[in-house]
Amino acid sequence: MSADEFSVIRDLFAPHATNEAARALRDDAAVLEASGKLVVTTDTIVEGVHFLAVDPIETVAMKALRVNVSDVIAKGARPVAALLNLVWSDARPAAEIATFAEAFGRDLKLFGVNLIGGDTTSTPGPLTISVTLLGEPLGSRVPARGDAQVGEDVWLIGGEIGSAWLGLQLRKGEIGLARLREGRDEVQAQADSRALSQSMPDYLKLANEDFDAEAAWLMTAYLAPFVRPECASVISKFASASMDVSDGLVTDAGKIADASGVALRIAINAVPFSIAAERWAFSGGDVRKLITGGDDYVMLFTAPSELRGAIEAAEGSQALRLARIGVVEAGGGVTVVDANGQAIPVADAGYSHKLGR
Amino acid sequence: MSADEFSVIRDLFAPHATNEAARALRDDAAVLEASGKLVVTTDTIVEGVHFLAVDPIETVAMKALRVNVSDVIAKGARPVAALLNLVWSDARPAAEIATFAEAFGRDLKLFGVNLIGGDTTSTPGPLTISVTLLGEPLGSRVPARGDAQVGEDVWLIGGEIGSAWLGLQLRKGEIGLARLREGRDEVQAQADSRALSQSMPDYLKLANEDFDAEAAWLMTAYLAPFVRPECASVISKFASASMDVSDGLVTDAGKIADASGVALRIAINAVPFSIAAERWAFSGGDVRKLITGGDDYVMLFTAPSELRGAIEAAEGSQALRLARIGVVEAGGGVTVVDANGQAIPVADAGYSHKLGR
Repeated sequence: MSADEFSVIRDLFAPHATNEAARALRDDAAVLEASGKLVVTTDTIVEGVHFLAVDPIETVAMKALRVNVSDVIAKGARPVAALLNLVWSDARPAAEIATFAEAFGRDLKLFGVNLIGGDTTSTPGPLTISVTLLGEPLGSRVPARGDAQVGEDVWLIGGEIGSAWLGLQLRKGEIGLARLREGRDEVQAQADSRALSQSMPDYLKLANEDFDAEAAWLMTAYLAPFVRPECASVISKFASASMDVSDGLVTDAGKIADASGVALRIAINAVPFSIAAERWAFSGGDVRKLITGGDDYVMLFTAPSELRGAIEAAEGSQALRLARIGVVEAGGGVTVVDANGQAIPVADAGYSHKLGR
Repeated sequence: MSADEFSVIRDLFAPHATNEAARALRDDAAVLEASGKLVVTTDTIVEGVHFLAVDPIETVAMKALRVNVSDVIAKGARPVAALLNLVWSDARPAAEIATFAEAFGRDLKLFGVNLIGGDTTSTPGPLTISVTLLGEPLGSRVPARGDAQVGEDVWLIGGEIGSAWLGLQLRKGEIGLARLREGRDEVQAQADSRALSQSMPDYLKLANEDFDAEAAWLMTAYLAPFVRPECASVISKFASASMDVSDGLVTDAGKIADASGVALRIAINAVPFSIAAERWAFSGGDVRKLITGGDDYVMLFTAPSELRGAIEAAEGSQALRLARIGVVEAGGGVTVVDANGQAIPVADAGYSHKLGR
């Protein structure tokens, strides 16, 4: 397939831009009708930095959108419109662009987002994707990082901590399947895997290994984070401060602490992990890797303690893995404590890319 | 200087994000108060594709913003808020980021744009910059590409065609200063250059050559396009169809023709060129290079012929190089004619990047 930027936009992306604001991607700008508050966020992912060159192009497309959906949800908002800057690597087959566009379009539909504009160009460097996402706040207030108050509870909602980090180690071969299987009920695990393997894509199989349900779950958490839009409603109703966890739980909790001028104390036993991650940690893995690893894309928020019951009721039975993981205290920084209340020393391993030479 | 993405945002970009919507770049999303129509556009520039690796980092910053400002102006709108995705090359000194941020901030101020968000990351590849720009339409209607009507005039406003292309050839050494000087009044040209050279930055001097006023003008048109926000008012009041010329006059006129289902006939003698470009063409240069070269960032629009007087009056004495260059006819495509009405055969040399391998 030969492709130039005009035909790619017309043939592959315009079909996903059916909203009037998009002007069918045939204009130089989108025209949005807006009223009231609008949440705007943008995030870039780069091959070799935020995803691996060998990651499937479908999940790269999903990740590019979802890291932004995650930011919008964390502000208690509903994502509505996206712009895509696709900087396609000269080294990649042009035929892959259609697969990218299809997966991106499917994910837009899943999250109810309209593609309203973008830009497609080439690069001699790695594949680089920026998405800008606009969202409508569900409530009148948009919680910031700096709104945490002493005495409030610290909550997580939307998923597990550390699964994506473990999934990345599996993809990179840093942790093998044998290590993951240590201590688990193999009869059960293999039954789970057999039940699931039919419907799973090839990229969730490990090299030279059969499909493994737990490994697939962890790798999916890394490849195409499970972002749960239902969290936005809970956040918009109850959160004081909020943000998504993308650079590691400890680092991101530190950002709320810094911006709010408070300290966060987190009980490690209350943090939601996957069963596989818990078993890995109990059989000698370093639990601190799970809470500093990054790529979680779950929501961290604080709320007054008198709202506990209402928050739990609002989560209802949506399986959002709502968890009250700590408290806001006077002071600064983040302390992680074990079951005995003893502090676990955690270096800030948060993911801040070094820039330039 | 060592730099990580958090400190770069805090120290270099946050000072330019003073608007409330930006939340001082300390949040994961901007919160905009919007009412009515909002024009949204985004464009990416890549080192080695849209600018040269040797181009000064100041003008790269300016270009990244201005190619987007140009799109907003072309829609008859006023640019108000920007998001910046800065993907910094590992091969570039981190110290250059401060220079980039300073130049970007200066240009934001020049165009009255608030920085409200963005993302900073690293890449093993070339420097890549996406800007997303939001604008407020000056009128109630936002002209599209597809709104041209048979019988209308075709206009250009905001600058010259072909100067940026000539400037790029000078920067690449494809055209030498001696060739540019052919047939010009050297006494006058050298007086102009002496008068200007004191206040000009080093990057406008050619290798092993003294500063030359005409060459500097052309190179500036390429490096940091002169974008004139005053054009937005004329466009919002009078334009039927409009867009900016960025991929070459003939290619972009073709986009209006295609989207509107009409033909555009353009008189080459009416197209605004710089004196240097005209002399270059008259002394053996191929004028077709000027009208297909790209990077012009001037505005192309159509309007009913009965508005001629009003359009000229609205331009007034703002030196916007307003030029009525042709007519909209029934049919399709673009025809460029010479002074005798003879068609000049022009291959569509428009700049559409090939994607992938």
